[in-house]
Amino acid sequence: MSCLSNPCEILVVGAGAVGGYFSSHLANQDNVRVSLVCRSDYDAVKSRGYEIISPKGNYTYQPDGIYRSATEYDRKADFILVCSKVLPEADVAEMIRPAVNSKTAIVLIQNGINIEAPVAEAFPDNELISGIAYIGVTRIAPGKISHTDGGTLKFGNYPKGLSEKTQLLCDMFNSNNIPASAHEDIQRIRWEKLTWNAPFNPVSVLTMADTRQLVNTPETCQLAKDIMAEVCAVAAAAGWEQKSDIIERQIEFTRQFRPYKPSMLADFEAGRPMETEAIMGNLVREAEKLSVPVPCSKSVYAMLKLRAKT
Amino acid sequence: MSCLSNPCEILVVGAGAVGGYFSSHLANQDNVRVSLVCRSDYDAVKSRGYEIISPKGNYTYQPDGIYRSATEYDRKADFILVCSKVLPEADVAEMIRPAVNSKTAIVLIQNGINIEAPVAEAFPDNELISGIAYIGVTRIAPGKISHTDGGTLKFGNYPKGLSEKTQLLCDMFNSNNIPASAHEDIQRIRWEKLTWNAPFNPVSVLTMADTRQLVNTPETCQLAKDIMAEVCAVAAAAGWEQKSDIIERQIEFTRQFRPYKPSMLADFEAGRPMETEAIMGNLVREAEKLSVPVPCSKSVYAMLKLRAKT
Repeated sequence: MSCLSNPCEILVVGAGAVGGYFSSHLANQDNVRVSLVCRSDYDAVKSRGYEIISPKGNYTYQPDGIYRSATEYDRKADFILVCSKVLPEADVAEMIRPAVNSKTAIVLIQNGINIEAPVAEAFPDNELISGIAYIGVTRIAPGKISHTDGGTLKFGNYPKGLSEKTQLLCDMFNSNNIPASAHEDIQRIRWEKLTWNAPFNPVSVLTMADTRQLVNTPETCQLAKDIMAEVCAVAAAAGWEQKSDIIERQIEFTRQFRPYKPSMLADFEAGRPMETEAIMGNLVREAEKLSVPVPCSKSVYAMLKLRAKT
Repeated sequence: MSCLSNPCEILVVGAGAVGGYFSSHLANQDNVRVSLVCRSDYDAVKSRGYEIISPKGNYTYQPDGIYRSATEYDRKADFILVCSKVLPEADVAEMIRPAVNSKTAIVLIQNGINIEAPVAEAFPDNELISGIAYIGVTRIAPGKISHTDGGTLKFGNYPKGLSEKTQLLCDMFNSNNIPASAHEDIQRIRWEKLTWNAPFNPVSVLTMADTRQLVNTPETCQLAKDIMAEVCAVAAAAGWEQKSDIIERQIEFTRQFRPYKPSMLADFEAGRPMETEAIMGNLVREAEKLSVPVPCSKSVYAMLKLRAKT
């Protein structure tokens, strides 16, 4: 770990279920110190740490440091892992700025597309790593996380390429039972994930249906395929061509998976803000920029945006 | 009224708010007898008649005859006015069959497109008149109707043309304070009405928003325009070209109108079945038949269909 401090200092910002779960696997090693900025659950996590309920076994986890804000962080972060939802009202650059130093690699483990640019602009001299999580985790109480599915990560540098630090980050996760892979073209994978998120997240909210109902109703299954085809067309125009069988693979995956409420529906039902802009708004704006027609995605985006307010 | 009996016998079937309101204007004349088939509100209407609350003045109205079913009707109907919602489970032909005689003109005052064919097939020798109502009326209690807006009618023969009986029906309404016009091309007007119904009805349900919110949100206003353009394209392919300014007129009309919950949203909120197939299903099927792409309408239809079940 030549390019890292010893111990390696990791700060997790936006430490909800995703941040809490993944960081729990890195903690409690001699050569890694994990700290978290944890606003709403500060008291619970400070006193009791995280409690994680998982089919792989329940456990508790006490981070090395807990802060209410990045301004309190007094170490030199090798990595800042941003695990918050991507919301227009959440300014990631401002959230992490007090903790960023010249050697900090900023790691965005977040949904959506075109989410990196504001951070890249705010910290032009820092390494920016884009990450994608495949996991089913929910915060069920302050400091309490329910892990139900998956738990893997993919990383790559923004806008593309693969650095030594990105590879080291993957190694750290892999050594700690979190399968993590490094990719030269992480944006292609971001678009691939969007082929699932763009149909199933908003359509679940607009119909109040889970994934099983969506794929088993012929009309909404076709709508999901139509939106996926639109995402693939925009991805290709943006230079990130998808595999030709991706649509049938995503549908088949969803059919085989247990009935599932996508995160947007879970957020909507709980009255929490949804990642409407990161997932649908950025898709529609990219399509417009590249002159790719996306009538189904645009319809769904328009209705989702209003539904969030009614 | 040479082609009609004296008195002229009118039977209203599916007598909810629309049937109750319009028939109230024809009743209580020497030369017209109005009877109603009124299933759910039979007891209330039989004992007290209809009570109509209207900005034009409140009044009560006692029909000449009230029946639980058309089988009880013992007169020879000149006109049967069908005012029910168009639902897959409601077989209009079976509902009216016992009351149809060789001289009966069947009048459908209903929403949607392509709703006449099943009735035309069931009664190939009867005159079939297609009617469109422009009115805001709601049944607020058994036998009690709240009238808020409008109250005009347009009629024409199916599939096209204009008969003496259609003209006489218009005359009867016009003589009784209901503006009614006769049209050679009633299908063109049906498609015109669909340019409003196809966007505002389903999108209001999917977003839980009223018309004011829909037109004042730029994205949903654009979606409404996109759906209207699709309806116009299908209408043109079906031979019913719409006027070039129809989209801006419909949007402007909706902007000027008071905030309004379209009938589908009112039905949805009350747990009643919605006219999903008559309005959206028939549009999408006609588009497919004529090979006109309607991605926005199809998206909305798919989600509405599932939403009705969740």
